[in-house]
Amino acid sequence: MKIFGDLKSGNCLKVKYTADHLGIPYEWMPVDITKGESRTNDFLSKSPMGQVPLVELADGRRIAQSNAIIRFLANGTSLLPEDRYQQAKVDELLFWEQYSHEPYIAVCRFHMLYLGRAAEERESQRVERGEAALDLMERLVQGREWFVGDAVSIADIALLAYTRVAHEGGFDLSSRPSVRSWIKRCETTLNLSSVH
Amino acid sequence: MKIFGDLKSGNCLKVKYTADHLGIPYEWMPVDITKGESRTNDFLSKSPMGQVPLVELADGRRIAQSNAIIRFLANGTSLLPEDRYQQAKVDELLFWEQYSHEPYIAVCRFHMLYLGRAAEERESQRVERGEAALDLMERLVQGREWFVGDAVSIADIALLAYTRVAHEGGFDLSSRPSVRSWIKRCETTLNLSSVH
Repeated sequence: MKIFGDLKSGNCLKVKYTADHLGIPYEWMPVDITKGESRTNDFLSKSPMGQVPLVELADGRRIAQSNAIIRFLANGTSLLPEDRYQQAKVDELLFWEQYSHEPYIAVCRFHMLYLGRAAEERESQRVERGEAALDLMERLVQGREWFVGDAVSIADIALLAYTRVAHEGGFDLSSRPSVRSWIKRCETTLNLSSVH
Repeated sequence: MKIFGDLKSGNCLKVKYTADHLGIPYEWMPVDITKGESRTNDFLSKSPMGQVPLVELADGRRIAQSNAIIRFLANGTSLLPEDRYQQAKVDELLFWEQYSHEPYIAVCRFHMLYLGRAAEERESQRVERGEAALDLMERLVQGREWFVGDAVSIADIALLAYTRVAHEGGFDLSSRPSVRSWIKRCETTLNLSSVH
C-alpha cells in the first residue's frame, strides 16, 4: 500500500497511526500541501478531490478522505468494534470530527503554523467553535478511557490527530484534564512520542 | 425508532429518505432548529452534540450525525454495497459531503432561506467552494447512473439532500446536466416529488 500524505497534516497522520498500530506495511509518498502538490494535474488524476491523505492499494485502487481510509483499514481489527451500534458510535465521532472539530482546531493551527498568523489574529468564530469542540470532548471522555467501548478505536485516532497539537492552533488544554489524560493514554498505546 | 429532526434540514431529510426507501417504520419527532430546539437542555441531555438529526432506537439507544445514522440504517441493505472497498468509496463521499459540500451549499441556503439574506450577500469563499463542489459532482457522475457502483446508495442520498435544493442557496445547476439527470433519477427511485 502507498500512502500519499504530508506529515505536517493531522489528517494524514491518522492514516499513519492506524497503519503503524495495525502493522500494515506501506510506502509513504510525500506530498507537500504548502507547495500545492495536492492540486497538481498529476495528483488530481489520482484523486479528483485534490486532498491528502490518499491511499493506493496493491492492486492500484485508491481511497481518499482520512476517516474513510482509517475505517477501511480498521475493518475487522481491534480498532473498530464488531457490533454495529458501536460502529455507528465510532462513525458519529468520525463525522463530528470532520464537521465540528477539524475546521476549527486544524484550520487555526494551519493559520498560525503555516501562514505565520498570531493567535490574536485567529477568526473569532473559529476560536469559539474550537473551544466548544474541546469542551465537548472533555465531557464525553470524562470518566472513560476511550471514546467508544473499552479499547482504543479509530474514533480515538481521528480525534487525537489534531487535539494533541491543538496548542499549535492557540488552544489551551490545561482546563481539560480528561482530554489530557486521554492524549497521554493514546500516545502510550499507539507508541507515539509525546508532543508536550 | 424515533427520528428527531427538522424537515427543512437536508441532513434530517437524508434519514427520512433512507428510512422511507427501506420501509423502516419510525415516529417523526419535530425539532425546530430555527427556534433553537436542538440546543435546549432537554435535547442536549439526549444528544450532547446538540444537532439534528438524532435517532432513538426501540431500546432507547441513540445515534447522532446524519451520515452515521444512514450508514447504520443501510448496513446489510441494498443502499450499502457489501464489498468493503465499495463501502470505502461510499464513506469517501459521505465524508467529502460533510466537509466540502454541506458547509457551503447548505450554509448558503440557510443564510438565504432562513436569515433572509440576498444571493449577493453570500460570503464569497462559501460561494466559490460550493461551486467547486458542484463542479466536482458533475465530473464524478458524468456517464454514470449513481455515484458508487450500479445502484442507488447512501452516497447518493447524502449528496442529494442539499444538491436538489442548491438553487435555494443561490446555486445554478443549469450548466451541470449530469447532476440534473442524476437528481431526477434519485427523485424517481426514492419516490420524491420534484422540487424544480
